[in-house]
Amino acid sequence: MFNLKAELGGARRGTLRTAHGDIETPFFMPIATKGAVKYLDNSDFKQLGNQILLSNAYHLYLRPGIEKLNSFGHLHKLMNWQKPILTDSGGFQVFSLARLRKLTDDGVVFNSHIDGKETFFTPELSMEIQDAIGSDIRMCFDYFPGYPADYDVAKKSVYLTTAWALRCKQWHDMVMQKRSKSVRSLLFGIVQGSSYKDLRKSSAQQLLAVDFDGYAIGGLAVGEPPEIMYEVLDNVVPELPTNKPRYLMGVGQPEQVLEAVKRGVDMFDCVLPTRNARHGQVYIRTQQDGLVAQDLSEIYYEKITIKGAIHDLSELALDPFCECYTCASGYSRAYIRHLFTIDDPLAKKLTSIHNLSFYVQMMAEIREAIDYA
Amino acid sequence: MFNLKAELGGARRGTLRTAHGDIETPFFMPIATKGAVKYLDNSDFKQLGNQILLSNAYHLYLRPGIEKLNSFGHLHKLMNWQKPILTDSGGFQVFSLARLRKLTDDGVVFNSHIDGKETFFTPELSMEIQDAIGSDIRMCFDYFPGYPADYDVAKKSVYLTTAWALRCKQWHDMVMQKRSKSVRSLLFGIVQGSSYKDLRKSSAQQLLAVDFDGYAIGGLAVGEPPEIMYEVLDNVVPELPTNKPRYLMGVGQPEQVLEAVKRGVDMFDCVLPTRNARHGQVYIRTQQDGLVAQDLSEIYYEKITIKGAIHDLSELALDPFCECYTCASGYSRAYIRHLFTIDDPLAKKLTSIHNLSFYVQMMAEIREAIDYA
Repeated sequence: MFNLKAELGGARRGTLRTAHGDIETPFFMPIATKGAVKYLDNSDFKQLGNQILLSNAYHLYLRPGIEKLNSFGHLHKLMNWQKPILTDSGGFQVFSLARLRKLTDDGVVFNSHIDGKETFFTPELSMEIQDAIGSDIRMCFDYFPGYPADYDVAKKSVYLTTAWALRCKQWHDMVMQKRSKSVRSLLFGIVQGSSYKDLRKSSAQQLLAVDFDGYAIGGLAVGEPPEIMYEVLDNVVPELPTNKPRYLMGVGQPEQVLEAVKRGVDMFDCVLPTRNARHGQVYIRTQQDGLVAQDLSEIYYEKITIKGAIHDLSELALDPFCECYTCASGYSRAYIRHLFTIDDPLAKKLTSIHNLSFYVQMMAEIREAIDYA
Repeated sequence: MFNLKAELGGARRGTLRTAHGDIETPFFMPIATKGAVKYLDNSDFKQLGNQILLSNAYHLYLRPGIEKLNSFGHLHKLMNWQKPILTDSGGFQVFSLARLRKLTDDGVVFNSHIDGKETFFTPELSMEIQDAIGSDIRMCFDYFPGYPADYDVAKKSVYLTTAWALRCKQWHDMVMQKRSKSVRSLLFGIVQGSSYKDLRKSSAQQLLAVDFDGYAIGGLAVGEPPEIMYEVLDNVVPELPTNKPRYLMGVGQPEQVLEAVKRGVDMFDCVLPTRNARHGQVYIRTQQDGLVAQDLSEIYYEKITIKGAIHDLSELALDPFCECYTCASGYSRAYIRHLFTIDDPLAKKLTSIHNLSFYVQMMAEIREAIDYA
């Protein structure tokens, strides 16, 4: 399933096999939260060279819902996207977005943030939703304790996360064993434990005992300083098996992605490229010959504000050295600034394409650097 | 400049030569009011087979303004669009959108609808703005009397429209005679006169005496019943020379476009396809072998509401017989409905592409039908 092909220091280069094709690692996933990446469609993803999309169980549970997903034939068909999809379990949204009513060892009662409808969300329900979505990589329903978290709360999050991971694994195994191997999904456990070394270690060990297809590191990129993030990685990664992919959820800024790659992480997702794009924040490479240092020591980039008056008459592409659709098609900074000024949606489309391309290209350069070494 | 090639009843088939290339008539212009067609970009226009865009002097005067347009090098360069552009004079917006302060024979004082800034808008200023835009086809600054209009008001609109048309013509001739023929823009006069036959006739005759490159029929599609619109066409078109293109401004629904073509109109623009698209109203052909009857007797289409629950599980393309990007790429009605439900901008992009394609395709079929006859 995961084939490790090369290493450079702690950084890894591999291939992850899924029911919808192989993915070269390390990779970055654009976020199609509700089954769409705002402003972009499949031809844009194709041009980007994007390998996989991430979608979200909580949002798709609310709309269109399990029944419609099952009737229609899963998300790949609905989105018209035939490459891999990873789904988040809904855990993070239940604890951050929904109106939480009650937490028990069995699951969580919440009210929908859309219409207030009450749901008893359980590990089994999360699995059922992800199965209706038909995602290739699925995440266990985990308990995110918030940040910062007291030791006791963090400890409870590890306990519940493991208990729920077991139930997810049982549900998943039971369903998948009836299906042919080629269409089976992968199931990942999520390491919790906040910033506490012993809890993180214990969480990892407990999940390893259950045995998953991959391991995610959750509860990061939630407001903690980068040093804490890196410290957690330094503590957790050595606990994880080398023959399974590692996924750092919700991270992050380009330099954080690089730091995590150097610590042995293989998979990433983050709202930053698209969210920044929609606010006119654009990533620009500062070295003509690439974003990433050959030896993975640095990422050469800066972030510019395209809404600034300085770009008023600029004939430059967003990034003259970028080969994305936006930059290669002749759109000037002056025009994109004008589009932001008149609040035309085309502004956000063009910058979203560029910023996602920046991340996809960065990952391609990281893979090249590891291959080359 | 205008080469009339074939006729079918009153309908005409021709080629209009502009500084940015030839346009086959009759044709429809998507509206890039402020220098962008919401959600769409040049690769979408290319796929559509779109020949020309329409933009607006009033909006581009406010943002980015004459100075920036001149400094940057005109709208074709700003938009990265190398085919023809037609500009409206700003007249309609000054009388409908801006806060009007004072109307004199010399021009109009208005306050910007954005920041309240006061401008004295004159025929010369309209020409100057359109020259900064660098449009291929320019419209004279006209006086739109509103609808319905009393006879006296309509009469005044004809008088002012002619007086201003003369001033536009003088400005345009003076500027263009210094430029080589290949880059000269075309200038169109606009026939006003509301629903009054004698005023429409008089307006047309006065403008003909000034001699323009083409003639527009203004003040229609502003709430009048279609019969009034057709009656005005029946009255005005016979007054216009056969060797000049005729432009029915702001029209309209597909059957109105067909009716106008049959009455000898060559050029159209309308917000309907894109506005309807953004509200989930989609044009669907009802005959597999085409939209337009070979003899121009009928247009076979209906309009469906893609937000309707009936499309919930529909695997159909918006229009299974359509070859536009949206329909040919495998996007289902179920998915587009889902995108509207979650309010994702991709919904509006996909339906806008389809509806514009419907209009562009309808015009292509109309041209074919006339050629074929």
